[in-house]
Amino acid sequence: MSEPTASATPTRQRNRTRSRPTVAAPAYLRRQIPTYAFLSPDGLDRLHAQAEQILAEIGVEFRGDDAALDLWRKAGAKVEGMRVRFEPGMVTEIIQKTTPKVFTQHGRDPQHAVEIGGDAIVFSPAYGSPFVYDREQGRRYGSLEDFKNFVKMAWMCPWIHHSGGTVCEPVDVPVNKRHLDMVYAHIKHSAKPFMGSVTAPERAEDSIEMCRILFGADFVDKNCVILGNINTNSPLIFDGVMSQGLRTYARANQAAVVVPFILGGAMGPVTTAGAIAQAHAEAMVGVALTQLERPGAPVIYGNFLSSMSLRSGAPTFGMPEPAMAYLAIGQLARRLGVPLRCGGSLTASKVADSQAAQESADSLWPALLGGANFILHAAGWLEGGLVMGYEKFVLDCDHLGMMHKLMAGLTFDDNTLAMDAFREVEPGKHFLGCAHTMANYTTAFYDADLADNDSFEQWRDAGSNAADVRASKKWKALLASHTDPDIDPAIDEALRDFIERKKQSMADAWY
Amino acid sequence: MSEPTASATPTRQRNRTRSRPTVAAPAYLRRQIPTYAFLSPDGLDRLHAQAEQILAEIGVEFRGDDAALDLWRKAGAKVEGMRVRFEPGMVTEIIQKTTPKVFTQHGRDPQHAVEIGGDAIVFSPAYGSPFVYDREQGRRYGSLEDFKNFVKMAWMCPWIHHSGGTVCEPVDVPVNKRHLDMVYAHIKHSAKPFMGSVTAPERAEDSIEMCRILFGADFVDKNCVILGNINTNSPLIFDGVMSQGLRTYARANQAAVVVPFILGGAMGPVTTAGAIAQAHAEAMVGVALTQLERPGAPVIYGNFLSSMSLRSGAPTFGMPEPAMAYLAIGQLARRLGVPLRCGGSLTASKVADSQAAQESADSLWPALLGGANFILHAAGWLEGGLVMGYEKFVLDCDHLGMMHKLMAGLTFDDNTLAMDAFREVEPGKHFLGCAHTMANYTTAFYDADLADNDSFEQWRDAGSNAADVRASKKWKALLASHTDPDIDPAIDEALRDFIERKKQSMADAWY
Repeated sequence: MSEPTASATPTRQRNRTRSRPTVAAPAYLRRQIPTYAFLSPDGLDRLHAQAEQILAEIGVEFRGDDAALDLWRKAGAKVEGMRVRFEPGMVTEIIQKTTPKVFTQHGRDPQHAVEIGGDAIVFSPAYGSPFVYDREQGRRYGSLEDFKNFVKMAWMCPWIHHSGGTVCEPVDVPVNKRHLDMVYAHIKHSAKPFMGSVTAPERAEDSIEMCRILFGADFVDKNCVILGNINTNSPLIFDGVMSQGLRTYARANQAAVVVPFILGGAMGPVTTAGAIAQAHAEAMVGVALTQLERPGAPVIYGNFLSSMSLRSGAPTFGMPEPAMAYLAIGQLARRLGVPLRCGGSLTASKVADSQAAQESADSLWPALLGGANFILHAAGWLEGGLVMGYEKFVLDCDHLGMMHKLMAGLTFDDNTLAMDAFREVEPGKHFLGCAHTMANYTTAFYDADLADNDSFEQWRDAGSNAADVRASKKWKALLASHTDPDIDPAIDEALRDFIERKKQSMADAWY
Repeated sequence: MSEPTASATPTRQRNRTRSRPTVAAPAYLRRQIPTYAFLSPDGLDRLHAQAEQILAEIGVEFRGDDAALDLWRKAGAKVEGMRVRFEPGMVTEIIQKTTPKVFTQHGRDPQHAVEIGGDAIVFSPAYGSPFVYDREQGRRYGSLEDFKNFVKMAWMCPWIHHSGGTVCEPVDVPVNKRHLDMVYAHIKHSAKPFMGSVTAPERAEDSIEMCRILFGADFVDKNCVILGNINTNSPLIFDGVMSQGLRTYARANQAAVVVPFILGGAMGPVTTAGAIAQAHAEAMVGVALTQLERPGAPVIYGNFLSSMSLRSGAPTFGMPEPAMAYLAIGQLARRLGVPLRCGGSLTASKVADSQAAQESADSLWPALLGGANFILHAAGWLEGGLVMGYEKFVLDCDHLGMMHKLMAGLTFDDNTLAMDAFREVEPGKHFLGCAHTMANYTTAFYDADLADNDSFEQWRDAGSNAADVRASKKWKALLASHTDPDIDPAIDEALRDFIERKKQSMADAWY
């Protein structure tokens, strides 16, 4: 069909909304500060050894995927029925032999290719919520219109590097046809990289096939252009839909994101150390399976470990235990040498209030300092993932902008150390108009979009608006500023044809 | 008069409000996780060298304090007029020769003595706001009633270790008599350690004198029982009120907290590296002066460095630049070997909204990972310090509770690694009722006080309350639960007499 350069015009959309001169808005972010050494090497050894012991003694079940069992058998694992057990060291060895430490995921605009792994960081919108929320219309089921809105906002936002996947469930589209509209929306309304369907192996295949139309089959075989988010069925299960989806992506040389979803005390031990060991074991097995399916296939080691309210059993987010898990898992993944996915701006709150912001920050800090490379749920997440929030989305985006500045770290040179400024400004004088300030002020500080730094009187006279009210105006403006990036009409037509034919081949299914 | 044990009954107030079984509420917090190595040793060397160069070449002015100039002259500094210049290495040497790395500040309840320095962390309420805010009464000037309310809430809150100082300005009391009522309120309504006045040398002296009545003069001479928060007049000035206050505390063997207050671009260079070097220089000079006044006096190296909106000149908080400054200054202070003060839950927001929580979290994380020992403004701060917020106070307190869990880190043993739980719970089963969960669930997770983890329907039926509304109920309940800790009636009487005599000796001054 075509190389990616043919299907997209170089874009300047990144900086269209509002100029923020203080930090560059790159296609992806590069962490220039160190990761945080939360655990000692001894602690890491114990966690890794515990994971190996779980895999050797308890093992993992693969349900409804005989081909996966065959791969494990050939690799030397002990397969009994659906249960697979692994000699200590075996899974680690499979992973380290062929898994890419870093890979590139292409967007249809080559300027939006992102690097995943190493010191690269990619922010991606929240994923998977059936509901959406905004201040005026309240909480409701997500629609294809909502889906497109979030794709459009992610395209316009300079701090989001990725279009995401199921940014919300388009509940008004039949469940067996949704993936076609979702992938098309990502392609049509954005030129950033995106994620495909995983809810059935044939939907994963359709998602990849649409990429072949867009990028060309040969390009897709040689390059990563789509991700598939694969959850384990914790504890220690891969159900067939998931493992087949994982293998479908790997077979096509596309990246599965292998994510144990563990709420401690429910799908894993209530003690954080044990839950981390389990998450590590499950993620390693998934990553290794991609390498058995296609050695060298790109893959992301994922993590979704949270806590629960022990009074009600409700899941909780942004708590100190998952923060520690992020930090520990970051070190485990880095030692293993695989790209890491963590959750970003998580919260159990229903609205974009103090709870939402606090829990989100308490999730984002450990994800970033833990060295996460692909940060899903970086913007929009509310209510434990049940809801994608419009106001939350833009508030989170502003926070991600700040994190661009933080990840850039400090530089030390004659200009930043400013000895000349001290020579110019005497003790007791001020630096407001000095030459050094004039030369540096446009890049000195992050210019927050939604923070109100005005005086109380100014704020009151403007309506005494809390941050979520300001965010309500912001998302509407962001959405209104959207324009589709150009697409080759022949490719667009081919994609529409594909979708039309696929849809006609199936009766509508609604569950 | 009396030893501290005589003036207080052992208290159980710490745990009175609501039992949180998941983490102990100690008199102070001990960081059991590593600090974050943000800057390389090279970067730290450059910053320290830059500070030394500023002190050698530009120097610092001491205005209206000849005794301070004399001390510097005797120590070998170059004094010209009010300007003092320091040979590179001189200030560092003075500090490292006699400054305690760790010291204890006593409360009148010995169980509430806090350690300051090393891996100890002390959370103290916000300080210095002329206004207060709550959801019902809105924003208004602070009164003595408000002051007492915050002292009482800090006493009842298990996650606040310190009663603070000017928790808000009691604007209804004459400015020259306020300090007497403030110190008395700290003593009467709390038994946690507190801070005294610094707004005039004689008020500092009165604050210490009241401690002598409470603890006994000899005990005060030998132990730290009060802190005084001393701001430099940046750039590079100590005004006489501040340096005399600093010397008053040091002379009495009490701890000055030396805090350069720098908004980059106004009181310091607009580039963060330069502002950090300046802050380091100013704090070092203040710390060193305490050691010239009384070698071995306890002292805290402080830091208040923030950014400003370069569009409006308004101060901004919780931005990435001060976060980096906290992390860098943490390393500088640690290398120097002095206890460190940072700000805690800072924000420019007017109310306890998303902005407030995000900025507060973005301040607290670097303070904690930077190794701060005394965290002022840990709860209540709004509007850049102009306002003490009731709802913000309890929301921050809940966050501080979470941080107790985070600072405890992870432990690895047979129980936490939970191999037996994996043996008990088969793949695909759940851990909800397993023996390991039952044995551990009461201490597994932080039990957040103000986070709503209920279902949407439960939350809606309870009134669709955002976090600040829930916080409004919480602070009233916390305040209603307060009882004064017992105090020896003779000491109480002596304190009242002292205040009465002092007040009668002065005409009211209102500015």
